[in-house]
Amino acid sequence: MTDAQNPSQETAVAPVKPAMRDALIAAAFQLFLDRGYEQTTIDDIVSLAGVGRRSFFRYFPSKEDVVFPDHEKCLADMTDFLQASEDGDDPVARVCDAARLVLRMYAENPTFSVQRYRLTKKVPGLRTYELSVVWRYERTLAEYLRARFSARRDGTLRADVIAAAVVAAHNHALRAWLRADGQGDAAAEMDRALEYVTSAWTSKQAPSGAAEEQDDVVIVITKRSTPMWRVVRDVEAGLGQD
Amino acid sequence: MTDAQNPSQETAVAPVKPAMRDALIAAAFQLFLDRGYEQTTIDDIVSLAGVGRRSFFRYFPSKEDVVFPDHEKCLADMTDFLQASEDGDDPVARVCDAARLVLRMYAENPTFSVQRYRLTKKVPGLRTYELSVVWRYERTLAEYLRARFSARRDGTLRADVIAAAVVAAHNHALRAWLRADGQGDAAAEMDRALEYVTSAWTSKQAPSGAAEEQDDVVIVITKRSTPMWRVVRDVEAGLGQD
Repeated sequence: MTDAQNPSQETAVAPVKPAMRDALIAAAFQLFLDRGYEQTTIDDIVSLAGVGRRSFFRYFPSKEDVVFPDHEKCLADMTDFLQASEDGDDPVARVCDAARLVLRMYAENPTFSVQRYRLTKKVPGLRTYELSVVWRYERTLAEYLRARFSARRDGTLRADVIAAAVVAAHNHALRAWLRADGQGDAAAEMDRALEYVTSAWTSKQAPSGAAEEQDDVVIVITKRSTPMWRVVRDVEAGLGQD
Repeated sequence: MTDAQNPSQETAVAPVKPAMRDALIAAAFQLFLDRGYEQTTIDDIVSLAGVGRRSFFRYFPSKEDVVFPDHEKCLADMTDFLQASEDGDDPVARVCDAARLVLRMYAENPTFSVQRYRLTKKVPGLRTYELSVVWRYERTLAEYLRARFSARRDGTLRADVIAAAVVAAHNHALRAWLRADGQGDAAAEMDRALEYVTSAWTSKQAPSGAAEEQDDVVIVITKRSTPMWRVVRDVEAGLGQD
């Protein structure tokens, strides 16, 4: 049945019929891999999937969108996850956890993710599309951080830079996993990459001259000209020995 | 004269005739501002500039490229600048200086830069184009850092994250200046933004327990369980007092 034959019924059915969406994705990827992305038309896809052209556009605004079918949902999940954040949550840890949602989406279907990675590398238009998706993730993280850092004079700068660093670390680990054909422990690699970002900023919360407490590490930042007695006092304060 | 009338002569003349390129840019922006980007065709642009269609494509691959006429040269300048780096140069400071080349390009022509900023905000296609340009800058910085950090186990991660953070800080300061209609001290704002990035990483060069020297700041990272005599020794070493 195509939507052209019975559009009203299909409109009503579509939301509870993800199978058609999945069939379109499967048909699209079969054709992209067999004959190439540029050589595949939307008509080819709907023909193989056995549906009408309008069904395609009900699920996907363009041919590019069928390549990245899960990003809209993942962006919505990320927004929900950040909105559920509480004031006590560490904001940088929270955006790292939000970024992990993207990895999880890729890791749920390694074969598909690796196929898409190879396809995207070959088609400049898909690479551009992916950049705009990455940008939307980055803005989602940055908006959350801007709200959390709103009391700081440098809040928006801090938010933008940390969001970019988190996205870069995430993509570094994700691409390593994709290049390894989806083999290996993606989550562990991701932890390592995100830890690099969090460690860069958790040490910089303290203003110059102050000591900051952490789980088991104390960091003292001091001017070279500071007298030693004062450095020792700051270190003692940091170690909780004063 | 149009290239259709005398293509061979114009091909020979083009490299020493930047006036035609400038005329095309000026005509394009006049039309973009008057009637809108989408409503302006390449035919409109060449007609107003008084040149032939092929002249346009000699200078610009597409209508989008005429909006960002200087990025190719700026990318080439950035690559040259990074290649001229010496082993003694601090790699993070070098990529910050490389990013400043982009600001300088914008600041050389504030009116044009502000016009383009407003245009880009309104046209999604230009925003996407800009994202791909930003990505090329980021990759240029990251490739340089990867080479500089090649001896480190986490070199590529570090390179990617720092490049992204530098680009985010740069764009934060650049956008603030553009939003302020090109008023204010863009270079000072840029220094402040990039300083935020460099300060995040210059403190993390040292492994836990070690002291690191900087111009006038000493940072000591120590475990909470470290005896005070050892902390003092490390601080003294950092201050050059041992």
